Amino acid sequence: MCYNEITFMKRILNKETPRYPDQEVRVAGWVNTRRDHGKIVFIDLRDRTGLLQVVCSSNLAEGIKEEDVLEIEGIVKKRPEKMINTELETGKVELKAEKIKVLSKAESLPFDLRDLKVSLPTLLDYRPLTLRNEKIKDIFQIQESVMDGFRKAAQKLGCTEIFVPTITASATEGGAEVFKLDYYGYSAYMAQSPQLYKQMMVPIFERVFVISHVYRAEPSVTTRHLSEVIQLDCEFGFVDFNELLDLLEIVGSETLKNVESKCPKILKEYGVEKISWGKIPRLTLREAQEIIYKETGRNVINEKDLGPEDEIDISKWARKEHGSDLITITHFPTKKRAFYTMPDSENPELSLSYDLLFKGIEICSGSQRINDYNQLVQIIKNKGMKPKNFEMYLQAFKYGMPPEGGFSFGLERITKQILGLENVREASLFPRDMERVDQRLSLLQKKKKIKTKN
Amino acid sequence: MCYNEITFMKRILNKETPRYPDQEVRVAGWVNTRRDHGKIVFIDLRDRTGLLQVVCSSNLAEGIKEEDVLEIEGIVKKRPEKMINTELETGKVELKAEKIKVLSKAESLPFDLRDLKVSLPTLLDYRPLTLRNEKIKDIFQIQESVMDGFRKAAQKLGCTEIFVPTITASATEGGAEVFKLDYYGYSAYMAQSPQLYKQMMVPIFERVFVISHVYRAEPSVTTRHLSEVIQLDCEFGFVDFNELLDLLEIVGSETLKNVESKCPKILKEYGVEKISWGKIPRLTLREAQEIIYKETGRNVINEKDLGPEDEIDISKWARKEHGSDLITITHFPTKKRAFYTMPDSENPELSLSYDLLFKGIEICSGSQRINDYNQLVQIIKNKGMKPKNFEMYLQAFKYGMPPEGGFSFGLERITKQILGLENVREASLFPRDMERVDQRLSLLQKKKKIKTKN
Repeated sequence: MCYNEITFMKRILNKETPRYPDQEVRVAGWVNTRRDHGKIVFIDLRDRTGLLQVVCSSNLAEGIKEEDVLEIEGIVKKRPEKMINTELETGKVELKAEKIKVLSKAESLPFDLRDLKVSLPTLLDYRPLTLRNEKIKDIFQIQESVMDGFRKAAQKLGCTEIFVPTITASATEGGAEVFKLDYYGYSAYMAQSPQLYKQMMVPIFERVFVISHVYRAEPSVTTRHLSEVIQLDCEFGFVDFNELLDLLEIVGSETLKNVESKCPKILKEYGVEKISWGKIPRLTLREAQEIIYKETGRNVINEKDLGPEDEIDISKWARKEHGSDLITITHFPTKKRAFYTMPDSENPELSLSYDLLFKGIEICSGSQRINDYNQLVQIIKNKGMKPKNFEMYLQAFKYGMPPEGGFSFGLERITKQILGLENVREASLFPRDMERVDQRLSLLQKKKKIKTKN
Repeated sequence: MCYNEITFMKRILNKETPRYPDQEVRVAGWVNTRRDHGKIVFIDLRDRTGLLQVVCSSNLAEGIKEEDVLEIEGIVKKRPEKMINTELETGKVELKAEKIKVLSKAESLPFDLRDLKVSLPTLLDYRPLTLRNEKIKDIFQIQESVMDGFRKAAQKLGCTEIFVPTITASATEGGAEVFKLDYYGYSAYMAQSPQLYKQMMVPIFERVFVISHVYRAEPSVTTRHLSEVIQLDCEFGFVDFNELLDLLEIVGSETLKNVESKCPKILKEYGVEKISWGKIPRLTLREAQEIIYKETGRNVINEKDLGPEDEIDISKWARKEHGSDLITITHFPTKKRAFYTMPDSENPELSLSYDLLFKGIEICSGSQRINDYNQLVQIIKNKGMKPKNFEMYLQAFKYGMPPEGGFSFGLERITKQILGLENVREASLFPRDMERVDQRLSLLQKKKKIKTKN
């Protein structure tokens, strides 16, 4: 084999190697593990398609350590029957290395990356490294398939994808938990939701979806909240409340089904039970509270919302009685919902709002919206806000708005719930909270602390 | 026909009407135009699938005006041969209205929405309304197909979609044009690019794409810049410079081809010439400058970059000589590019960087990156920055990083260029600049003006 042949041999991916028995190939990737057996060294080489066992002489493998990046040329050999590794896609072959080129040397690792046992803060302090652990990385394969499933479901329903800004002139839905920005000497705010924009697009496209970053200056540390999350939104024109519930459940189910069909191995690895796909029950908040009382003896009737424990109990009931891991709860008190939520004409204290629960946690929330201009202006005033601040939003209603409604999912929260993770931070590549912007704030920025008056 | 039948008749979409000749249907949408002919009124009803001509008695149409939202029941009638409108998808039929329900009344319009002639500020002041003009709306159909084409191209190349934050602890690439945020009493910044994050993901997924909002506190008003834009990024591990140019050109071409195949009618309406798909020429900056000199007599040799006029001239040459509306320019001066750009080993003053030009404007930019940890630390120091501020980023390189590179597209800019729009603001649903956050800042927020010392 002459020099030129080596240089110009095209890299193949690990999973392609079984197609080249007894042939010379070139692969490239990271040293996942190294096992020494006297004069023979086994290297598990990792690339984006998985692992490949490489057999080298100890000479060839001299100095090679975990996470070094290698380019290896060698011959693909079938493994003897009893050496086949059924866990690996490449388990029927191994590569007999002939030449190894080190593309990048890794420093010694601060912890065992394969048998990763670190606290959450360490996991996040070393994010570029800990993500190299297969199981940690897999969380974000699930996340990708959630997004992919959501997009496909929305597109199938005729939604147009729109792109809306995150810098806003006023706090969308009121509330203090908003990040303030210096905008060319003026005050601006980071969007708490794309809500008003997606509604404005109903008269343009009728049905829209939008993927956006939303921001909440949540002043506490919980396992469920982050300061910046990805939100998946839909909004539909010409729909009534029951159609909205259908649409919500279609998008929710299709999204989860996409994950099940794309990532069965990861779900199994995480010990996730198959999702129960019985017909999704629909209860009003009051009905749900009565069932909780009957089932558990806990009296939460007349509470304004479901607490975390309630969500778990009513989800258990849905699974037991209807074989469904999803359940829809409707008719939350109008006062507890955002201003644009449509009150129920039969009882205006309750609203045409809904939550979709999945295995005991709310993953999606939405409502029928007020689409009458005058009613909307009145509600804004009643809430102590100024119609002037909603001038552009109100235009959409002033010039003809059909009955409409929609909903939104939180990408990190749904990822957390699918895999049963303990903390939503595990489901964000680079989570933002009051303690951390990549580095811990307490360590990094003390000197930069600025005054926060106004 | 009894009441119940009417109530429960399912709405069909305008474009579905030709399937129901002589049958009763229900449609819904906005009044696009109204034309009175004595006792007969013609209404063009608009829904998300297009227009449908509705014929009503003047009684039935009483008080109905443009942009009212209607639900109409009636009989689908074939038009006589000579009344067929070949411009409309529903042009072979019309609906004879029997019942009209007004779902929402529109106020009188401030301008003619069908023959829209307003200045850019008015266009943006009335965004929810002006978008109802077909030609304005179409810009965002093009935008959706750009995004869709980019995603498909990236997925086909094996890229994993990642989601990275927009709040950052320091200004990514230096420079003053960065928005500052009050982050729980600390200073944080809005991301100027997802660059460092996507690079960090190379050791995890090898190939990634990311769609993100990026922010630039651009203190001037130009037709090419916005304060918040959508950026489409790819990053690839195990690639050399020539492979990167291939990948850049594949993603660029596939994205544009998706637009051509999805939106031929819109392109025609905008008078856009078909894209010339000759083999894309690749020139170094110096070669391009020499050609410009030869072709035009303008001597720009030794300039550090291509100016807007240069981009137009070299694109003309590419079309003339190679039948290509795309051209790739490489080897920009190392000093003019971001710190992570790989210098050319043959002449370190020039870098392994590239721009992709489309019909005379740069739509995409990228480079081979420095992947050696020590070299990267040294460059950061040389640029007067602190490696400490890049601690997490540098981890990715410290523990094994293959040769890698990538590029990014601006969604608004590419949309503008495809349609030949004059101003990038036309290609953003809700553009942000130093004068506007939906409302004009000068009008809305004077009182809120805050001090910007720091």
